[in-house]
Amino acid sequence: MKDFLDLAALEPERVRELVARARQFEHTPHPDALAGKVIALLFMNPSLRTLASMQSGIARLGGSSFVITPGQGTWAFETRPGVVMDGDRAEHVREALPVLARYADAIGIRAFADGVDLDADVAETTFNAIAGPCPKPVINLESAMNHPCQALADFKTLDDLEVPADGRFVLTWAWHPRALPLAVPSATVQMAALRGMDVTVLRPDGFDLPDAVMARARSIAEKTGGRVDVTDDRRAALDGAHVVYAKSWGSTKNYGDTATDMQLRDKLRDWCVAESWFANTRDARFMHCLPVRRNVVVADEVLDGPRSVVLRQAENRMWGQMAVLDRLLNEDETR
Amino acid sequence: MKDFLDLAALEPERVRELVARARQFEHTPHPDALAGKVIALLFMNPSLRTLASMQSGIARLGGSSFVITPGQGTWAFETRPGVVMDGDRAEHVREALPVLARYADAIGIRAFADGVDLDADVAETTFNAIAGPCPKPVINLESAMNHPCQALADFKTLDDLEVPADGRFVLTWAWHPRALPLAVPSATVQMAALRGMDVTVLRPDGFDLPDAVMARARSIAEKTGGRVDVTDDRRAALDGAHVVYAKSWGSTKNYGDTATDMQLRDKLRDWCVAESWFANTRDARFMHCLPVRRNVVVADEVLDGPRSVVLRQAENRMWGQMAVLDRLLNEDETR
Amino acid sequence: MKDFLDLAALEPERVRELVARARQFEHTPHPDALAGKVIALLFMNPSLRTLASMQSGIARLGGSSFVITPGQGTWAFETRPGVVMDGDRAEHVREALPVLARYADAIGIRAFADGVDLDADVAETTFNAIAGPCPKPVINLESAMNHPCQALADFKTLDDLEVPADGRFVLTWAWHPRALPLAVPSATVQMAALRGMDVTVLRPDGFDLPDAVMARARSIAEKTGGRVDVTDDRRAALDGAHVVYAKSWGSTKNYGDTATDMQLRDKLRDWCVAESWFANTRDARFMHCLPVRRNVVVADEVLDGPRSVVLRQAENRMWGQMAVLDRLLNEDETR
Repeated sequence: MKDFLDLAALEPERVRELVARARQFEHTPHPDALAGKVIALLFMNPSLRTLASMQSGIARLGGSSFVITPGQGTWAFETRPGVVMDGDRAEHVREALPVLARYADAIGIRAFADGVDLDADVAETTFNAIAGPCPKPVINLESAMNHPCQALADFKTLDDLEVPADGRFVLTWAWHPRALPLAVPSATVQMAALRGMDVTVLRPDGFDLPDAVMARARSIAEKTGGRVDVTDDRRAALDGAHVVYAKSWGSTKNYGDTATDMQLRDKLRDWCVAESWFANTRDARFMHCLPVRRNVVVADEVLDGPRSVVLRQAENRMWGQMAVLDRLLNEDETR
Repeated sequence: MKDFLDLAALEPERVRELVARARQFEHTPHPDALAGKVIALLFMNPSLRTLASMQSGIARLGGSSFVITPGQGTWAFETRPGVVMDGDRAEHVREALPVLARYADAIGIRAFADGVDLDADVAETTFNAIAGPCPKPVINLESAMNHPCQALADFKTLDDLEVPADGRFVLTWAWHPRALPLAVPSATVQMAALRGMDVTVLRPDGFDLPDAVMARARSIAEKTGGRVDVTDDRRAALDGAHVVYAKSWGSTKNYGDTATDMQLRDKLRDWCVAESWFANTRDARFMHCLPVRRNVVVADEVLDGPRSVVLRQAENRMWGQMAVLDRLLNEDETR
Repeated sequence: MKDFLDLAALEPERVRELVARARQFEHTPHPDALAGKVIALLFMNPSLRTLASMQSGIARLGGSSFVITPGQGTWAFETRPGVVMDGDRAEHVREALPVLARYADAIGIRAFADGVDLDADVAETTFNAIAGPCPKPVINLESAMNHPCQALADFKTLDDLEVPADGRFVLTWAWHPRALPLAVPSATVQMAALRGMDVTVLRPDGFDLPDAVMARARSIAEKTGGRVDVTDDRRAALDGAHVVYAKSWGSTKNYGDTATDMQLRDKLRDWCVAESWFANTRDARFMHCLPVRRNVVVADEVLDGPRSVVLRQAENRMWGQMAVLDRLLNEDETR
């Protein structure tokens, strides 16, 4: 691997190798796997799990890391090509990234969607502008439409729990006071398709995932023997489910239009996952990437009950990322 | 030890063992004592000494650490149970702490008093809400009413300087432009009682330490052969003192009432420790936990003079915390 | 070396030794050179390269570091002597620095100019107030009038590229939307003089470097066989140049007077280094310390072209600082 930008771009076999390597790190200390390596962590957006799991995982492998947070300790970066930089951005990513690359053996980058133009976000314009000038291996720590580290952790979690590879996987939209990014749901639907699962996206009208995301998930499912469906029929979607994965996201019909999005979601406060949702499931697991708003996205009764596996998902962030770093920095083929 | 939340809850013998271990770390490098261990440092409030001494001490023992600062790089945490999280708090401590615990071998937590309801702060409501969901060893890096790392450092400092175990220890209130937390004075009076000292709390009317704090200090003193008194008679308090420990804190009579507290303290600007205070002491040492406001809490002449031991106190933060981490992570009984 | 505050205070031979040591670190890993050492990094101002290169370089030598950022995670520091601290500054550098020194083996300090009183800034009043109370080795990570780590990196860069020691070195002022500090141009002119170069400062009227800076550069040049000139004649300055080093800085004629400085620079937008500037040079290299505003200070065509060596300069920050830390902490003469 040269970079780790998109889990769904890997062959399922390659993902299973990463999961296997993650499991080795989980069960046996490898204090020298990243000895002498330094990883830069560039956060354009806030973080808890990613920041903590990257730093801890790198340390556990004997490596070092440092954190750069533009706008906080470091000035803001310009990403647009050819611009006359007479505004408030003091440094262009065309210098910043190559410079960080001189100090680091790999760079993790978090850069959320701009949330204005759906096509630009689907094209990963901002992330690519930042990561593009980086000559060292890049790990996507969440971009506009992707979160491969979360997807890898979730893949391993499903394996850990022996959820059938062709089991029923429901990704459900949930209410939230504001429009959230599409990165996790987009990565999740493709991850489940890659695992060969029978995937249903359960969402209210106006909250479809982008066409390109769904088309790609379907094309992946075709190869893996999975299936990808969409519905707003909660009862039908949940029937026989092995997994209910909750996540809130913003309206794509009114992308970037906060007022209309708010109007639309105002009537949807009952999209809060409750224990009653699980009545006709196969005693389904409850998944969420965290952070999660209690009694908004999911009721306490579910999150605190035995079906919740959110902490295992979070822990697998660390083991998965350690496997990724190991593959990026210790394989012969690395650039 | 399972956690390190409260120095005064330990037997004096146990504290002396910690001091002895701290002294070993002070005098001989132990670069492998925390090899392979990762410690999370969660700061809900600002820090200098605690942040620096924890990171440096952990590194000196071969361990690693990472820092999480909600509201700055990480979103703010919700602490209330059962709440509908539709406000500005993006993650509940009931997820955040267990997640950090998956990445770390121990967690240090700083969470100051809310400063509204004295009973709630005495009960450590906020700290307990944060630390409660953590299944790994917790180190209290300052809570509403406690600062056990400071208390351990101060205990060692008194030992280092061979201050008699039954010597006279004066904790004096000092002026400050605003109401400060009660954590350090509360921990200090109990630490001195635990050491068996003859303790006097010198404070103006309205600035008593909480009844529960004083009652506990007296009950500790009964066991250790110490004594705990309160007065507003400066001359009497300082007469024969071995140690003058200065600290400002907020009015408990008007807890959470900033306006009345300010009125009360307006007349108390002469509570600034000056060289003249030491005339009838036994050439007393001057102690303060830092940060200290010069010529407000204490005059330059005292702080810059030979009786000041504030830098030794600060240095002992590091050695003491190293001992605590070693006991938490390397003892057989650890959970 | 006891401290690393000022490259120009070193003998040229000493600088060459540092460059040689930097080159050793560049070409061979030395993972134990700083084993067991902890370096405090105190940033009063934002940073990217310095923060990243210090942390990475220290890690590569097996040392550890921690970062303190007053006003962000840590309260603001008071620097004035004798002051009554009843304002918003919670801790005096007279405590803060000795405390950090107890936790660290060396301290890197960044503290920019106050930008109000030129004489005070030339005298390094603020940096000295901060660094003065520190009993451990101090590394200047940029002060009001100096940036010795940048100067060392630039010296190595000139050597790396085999720029003739007596070559023509042009430091040119460039336009920028606001007045920037004088640290880099001041350090640069002295560094080039120390290397024995034929130095020309090309700047518009009102933007002379401080007299003390120029006088010192000339006195250094006298010893090294170099030369230091000033002009506003662009054509003459660039004729035969080996190096064009661009940097913007504030008007010294109107120091601290933002309105007049803005008026003055309003007419100077054509001071943006373009490819045409290089027509009569000796195919000169383009240098800049970064961050740089594209198409403001320098045109894309130059920065993206083959004459730009800004990334090599940035990389040399790391190797140079590693050499400095090694000399500070591993030489017999260290205090």
